[in-house]
Amino acid sequence: MARINENYRKLQAGYLFPEIGRRVAAFTERHPEARVIRLGIGDVTLPLAPAIVEALRDAAASLGTEAGFHGYGPENGYAFLLELIQEHDYRARGVSIEADEIFVSDGSKQDSGNIQEIFAQDCRIAVPDPVYPVYVDTNVMAGRTGEADDDGRYAGILYLPATEENGFTPAPPAGRVDLAYLCSPNNPTGAVASRENLEAWVAWARANDAVLIFDAAYDAFIQDPALPRSIYEIEGAAECAIEMRSFSKRAGFTGVRCAYTVVPRALGGSTASGERVSLNALWARRHATKFNSVPYVVQRAAAAVFSPEGRKQTREQVAYYLTNARALRDGLGEAGFTCFGGEHAPYIWMRTPDGLSSWECFDKLLGQAHVVCTPGSGFGAAGEGYVRISAFNSRENVDEAIDRIRHAFSG
Amino acid sequence: MARINENYRKLQAGYLFPEIGRRVAAFTERHPEARVIRLGIGDVTLPLAPAIVEALRDAAASLGTEAGFHGYGPENGYAFLLELIQEHDYRARGVSIEADEIFVSDGSKQDSGNIQEIFAQDCRIAVPDPVYPVYVDTNVMAGRTGEADDDGRYAGILYLPATEENGFTPAPPAGRVDLAYLCSPNNPTGAVASRENLEAWVAWARANDAVLIFDAAYDAFIQDPALPRSIYEIEGAAECAIEMRSFSKRAGFTGVRCAYTVVPRALGGSTASGERVSLNALWARRHATKFNSVPYVVQRAAAAVFSPEGRKQTREQVAYYLTNARALRDGLGEAGFTCFGGEHAPYIWMRTPDGLSSWECFDKLLGQAHVVCTPGSGFGAAGEGYVRISAFNSRENVDEAIDRIRHAFSG
Repeated sequence: MARINENYRKLQAGYLFPEIGRRVAAFTERHPEARVIRLGIGDVTLPLAPAIVEALRDAAASLGTEAGFHGYGPENGYAFLLELIQEHDYRARGVSIEADEIFVSDGSKQDSGNIQEIFAQDCRIAVPDPVYPVYVDTNVMAGRTGEADDDGRYAGILYLPATEENGFTPAPPAGRVDLAYLCSPNNPTGAVASRENLEAWVAWARANDAVLIFDAAYDAFIQDPALPRSIYEIEGAAECAIEMRSFSKRAGFTGVRCAYTVVPRALGGSTASGERVSLNALWARRHATKFNSVPYVVQRAAAAVFSPEGRKQTREQVAYYLTNARALRDGLGEAGFTCFGGEHAPYIWMRTPDGLSSWECFDKLLGQAHVVCTPGSGFGAAGEGYVRISAFNSRENVDEAIDRIRHAFSG
Repeated sequence: MARINENYRKLQAGYLFPEIGRRVAAFTERHPEARVIRLGIGDVTLPLAPAIVEALRDAAASLGTEAGFHGYGPENGYAFLLELIQEHDYRARGVSIEADEIFVSDGSKQDSGNIQEIFAQDCRIAVPDPVYPVYVDTNVMAGRTGEADDDGRYAGILYLPATEENGFTPAPPAGRVDLAYLCSPNNPTGAVASRENLEAWVAWARANDAVLIFDAAYDAFIQDPALPRSIYEIEGAAECAIEMRSFSKRAGFTGVRCAYTVVPRALGGSTASGERVSLNALWARRHATKFNSVPYVVQRAAAAVFSPEGRKQTREQVAYYLTNARALRDGLGEAGFTCFGGEHAPYIWMRTPDGLSSWECFDKLLGQAHVVCTPGSGFGAAGEGYVRISAFNSRENVDEAIDRIRHAFSG
């Protein structure tokens, strides 16, 4: 008899964004006349930059020729892309990463969800709270947790509250932890980790033989050149950290799909008997067995992000979204709302007014302002009392959303 | 202390194809003058069909416009693609599949590797032997097996020998099995399952409350209209089978990446306490949590496979490879080699001459004929004494390979 993986039954409700999608669909069905402004899911809205479109088209055309056809690609990515990543994302910041430490993939969601597979079943996990749900849900599915409590917190996971008091950047924990997930600039709070905070994490990981999973999907939004964009800018991080980066937000690739994960060769894990094993080799084995490389046309498009035109054009897109973020923070702040983030990130983390719960605020914003946000509690218990507002939209929509939100709460 | 998933250490050597790649690279380094003909890894060689190139290019251009930009796609695939799959791959064969039973993905390798996640840890697995290594390796990684024996067979997996005696299509097992992997047309043997064989499997699965994982990645190569191309052409299969299909081999998508998996809503699994649970809902949850849809441009390209021009052009490509397969089977057969497959599949399964082992034959073909094949033993113990020869190459190369193989063994 085919029995199921019962760990799935521990999962709380649906994955967050489909649930939001269902509520928005129900609303628009009841109110087909409403012009809904979507600042919920963090999906980019600007068209793909011209340099990237050109690369995609050229690559597509070449696949139609004998000389330019490409079938299965190298498992970890084409050399032309790996070299650009090494040069622009690392060497330019003083960091040396080898080509075989980089694994090109179809998304940081996938990578951050899959990375737990190479670790032992009884690893103890720490996550910030609130947190991107994929880190938690994939560990639940893998059976690393018990049931969820009334707040949606799973037994066996250590939650590190990210609060106004700690600037939404929690310090390393005191108890035993094997794997800690970090995300900076942070989804959902929009907070960015300082160099000192990351140094503390690296020191802690090295002292405890723990591994950091560092999700830098939003690194392109960091404006202060003194802030680390890679965990490997912190000394010793290559011995304790895995890093994930994505083209989704930096270059509008949410529908194009390209990202990469760095697993340094210096990084080891242990067997039960204490033997050291290369995590790079384990991840390479997983990648070779369960993945089949990113489309050739997509890797060519990703390479174009690093061309002079591509860099200029994608920088302008990021600047556009950051201008939106500033408008949201300032506009809502002037209207009396308490807002965080939005400085080095495309997200505003807004305290709900009038003591509303996150979902109550979501429903009110949808019902009265026709604005979609993301309820903070969807990201974890410590997100209760907040909503995430995304800057990914047109400037006109952002301005109108600010007006509508003001009015919804001024009555 | 971060401990690793020690199940990975049970895996035998590297994944098969990287190992072949290493041997070929070592050979070409020693013999840079040799013109190696690659009939090893099953990678297509013809350029992408014009209708598909056009769709890719048009979709790329549209991403550069405000009206045509697409970010995150629907998790299970765009409706335009799902409808074409329903119509052409199922309704045209008298099978009714709902859109929400189809999950578009970036490859059958991924799907056939990931599907085991929704089943219990102690499920008992059956696989044909020889077999596509991904089915086995992903279950090893998940901890469903013990160590491998000297033949590379893992404790806890039931191997069903596919032999000359049973026409390389094993019958259902007698003992308890929860999940059985089937692949037809078969990789690596090139055998195709008859309707009677599939009927026996469906009857067995229903009688035993087992689930069939049916990999139909090569269905486009079936030439006899009476042979089932989908498991759902067998009555009752929707209650016991998951099916995987791919655009890789039917339309040259090995470097474009698109496939899909069907999980019928009628299909259930059980909890330990005997409750029935929808496998469709579990797979939907996995897909939403660990995947982020296939690139928009790729889904447009896949849709073009179903256009009148796309169907005509891809049919011609399949016919080209099948002509190669026939040439290999006939040419090698006339030269005294014993060959199977190649009729409804792009693979020839050749008995090694002179009592050579699979790897000995591989090394001899590489060293003396400069032809790359795949050692049968790489697919399982019952593949020992065979090699797989792929028809994916130009007709000229195939003809030359036949000559060279003849000569290598005529001395």
